[in-house]
Amino acid sequence: MTDTPSTTTPGKPTTGAAPRTTSEDLAVNFAEIEAAATRLQGIARLTPVHQSRQLDTACNAQVMLKCENFQNTGSFKFRGAYNSLLLLKEAGHAGVVAFSSGNHAQAVALAGSMLGLATTIVMPNNAPKVKAAATRGYGASIVEYNPSTTQREKLAAEIAESSGLPVVPAYDYPHVIAGQGTAAKELFEEVGELDVLLVCCGGGGLLSGSCLSAAALSPDCRVIGVEPALGDDGARSFRSGRIETVHNPATIADGARTPYLGDLTFPIIQRYASDIVTVSDAALIETLRFLWERLKLIVEPTGALALAALLSGTEMGHLEIAPGARVGVTISGGNVDVSSAATLFGNA
Amino acid sequence: MTDTPSTTTPGKPTTGAAPRTTSEDLAVNFAEIEAAATRLQGIARLTPVHQSRQLDTACNAQVMLKCENFQNTGSFKFRGAYNSLLLLKEAGHAGVVAFSSGNHAQAVALAGSMLGLATTIVMPNNAPKVKAAATRGYGASIVEYNPSTTQREKLAAEIAESSGLPVVPAYDYPHVIAGQGTAAKELFEEVGELDVLLVCCGGGGLLSGSCLSAAALSPDCRVIGVEPALGDDGARSFRSGRIETVHNPATIADGARTPYLGDLTFPIIQRYASDIVTVSDAALIETLRFLWERLKLIVEPTGALALAALLSGTEMGHLEIAPGARVGVTISGGNVDVSSAATLFGNA
Repeated sequence: MTDTPSTTTPGKPTTGAAPRTTSEDLAVNFAEIEAAATRLQGIARLTPVHQSRQLDTACNAQVMLKCENFQNTGSFKFRGAYNSLLLLKEAGHAGVVAFSSGNHAQAVALAGSMLGLATTIVMPNNAPKVKAAATRGYGASIVEYNPSTTQREKLAAEIAESSGLPVVPAYDYPHVIAGQGTAAKELFEEVGELDVLLVCCGGGGLLSGSCLSAAALSPDCRVIGVEPALGDDGARSFRSGRIETVHNPATIADGARTPYLGDLTFPIIQRYASDIVTVSDAALIETLRFLWERLKLIVEPTGALALAALLSGTEMGHLEIAPGARVGVTISGGNVDVSSAATLFGNA
Repeated sequence: MTDTPSTTTPGKPTTGAAPRTTSEDLAVNFAEIEAAATRLQGIARLTPVHQSRQLDTACNAQVMLKCENFQNTGSFKFRGAYNSLLLLKEAGHAGVVAFSSGNHAQAVALAGSMLGLATTIVMPNNAPKVKAAATRGYGASIVEYNPSTTQREKLAAEIAESSGLPVVPAYDYPHVIAGQGTAAKELFEEVGELDVLLVCCGGGGLLSGSCLSAAALSPDCRVIGVEPALGDDGARSFRSGRIETVHNPATIADGARTPYLGDLTFPIIQRYASDIVTVSDAALIETLRFLWERLKLIVEPTGALALAALLSGTEMGHLEIAPGARVGVTISGGNVDVSSAATLFGNA
């Protein structure tokens, strides 16, 4: 990776994607997304695409929401987890290790339970009790650690080594990227080509997979990642051409607190994404209220990032959308404690 | 109407509906629902049917949720309102009057705005500010009254008389019943015949319309109304054979506080429904939390009545569902102030 790779200079033209023939050096290709889709058929939910005239009017565009909040375990993470665990099972593994305090944990736990694989999840001891309970409910063993004294990657690697079980990373892993790419694949297959696809971005698993599906199925579609302004490592990396880091940002978008893009996801994003933009937490809350109150969809803060860029505007990066454009928006998940609504929205 | 009409004795067989040939004396027939569906085509949303393995497991049945919370204005009420206003416009009226503090008000206001009809809504001065604002936002004129000193039916009738405009009742009106019946019609057309259809019941507009669609499209389907236990006028009426009254019950299901079934809706329900059962407010809250937190659907308390009977059990009336039965459940609406979540669910 160089500081100014020829295909990703800041300010590069934002229409059209590079031809697929340049993708041999990337970690994942579209054929692997197609294979993942076959593995997920009848297993993952073919999630609905919501449209609303009210939303179209508010955005001055034709907006299609791909609702992964309705996916098994309440987020797109199930796609990549199941795809990975099935392949690991076929390779002869009896179980897996993962580290996550959030949606990846639940996804790995459910996929393991469906496939008869033992799952060990390394979780901080300050993780929300509901998420730990849900993960345990899917049959996983939880290993708690103190995040102020222990580094989770190191702990997971130790457990993996002592148990002989593979670690399933949350995003920087080819089978995870391929699985996440099936969400955008479904969207294009259902609604046809799009002008723009907006995708939230933490470590870039969903964004990179979406880029690959767009390049194959809607090559003129601009794919744009959206991050919280407080955790803008991806937007800065996209501009600088090297992976930049923001540790533990104080955004409400807990799924996008990931400190950096991955070594596998970043080159795909560099190659195929048109931009990564950011939104403020205030815009995120406004968008959440719109989603909950007007569209009747329970979406978690991270899941509203992509729509917030469209509905409320961006901080870093400019989102230019032609009036009436066909815009896909990935709603990534809906795992939120509903009692937190008063905290999010105030007590009206 | 007699105390013990031959077709509605308590304990009557709960399978099969009376043949349609006996319906000449009812206010609405299925042909009028078909005509309403034609008027609503491309206007009302063809709302999605949600299914979930998690829900099927919890209910030990194959459950199909007809999600009218995604309907225009956030509830099924838009169907009946638009159908009525279109016919009134065709009859030469320039506007209409309605009285409602809830979903019917918003539905009439939006339908009027779409059809270019002036709408005057009579609302109590203690109606939730958000509902009044939404109704005004759709372009209606609001006439406020003091509910402790003024009877709203009388006020609406006076306004109608002085203005020469017709009143559109919230449920006891043929074109409203016909419009509401299109929701169940869509459900049967999408998923085929069902063993049971559960429908919430306030004044009986949705329930009576659903009965007519079921009798035509799924004649062996048992249609069962669900009321809050605190407002059990319909359940008691169904058993006694005469319209009974519960004034202003203190249930959280504000859409089912209607004091009595209608003169037009009751005979249809008597003829075609298998039962009206009740659920406690505690069961309703438990079901709401399941809908919000697990199924990611914003549903208002009244909208969760039908599922509460299936998920949490009944107070009055017994719901016998064979394991694996195909059960339709109408989710009637989603208009709730999301800041009220803390009040509903506690501050976890």
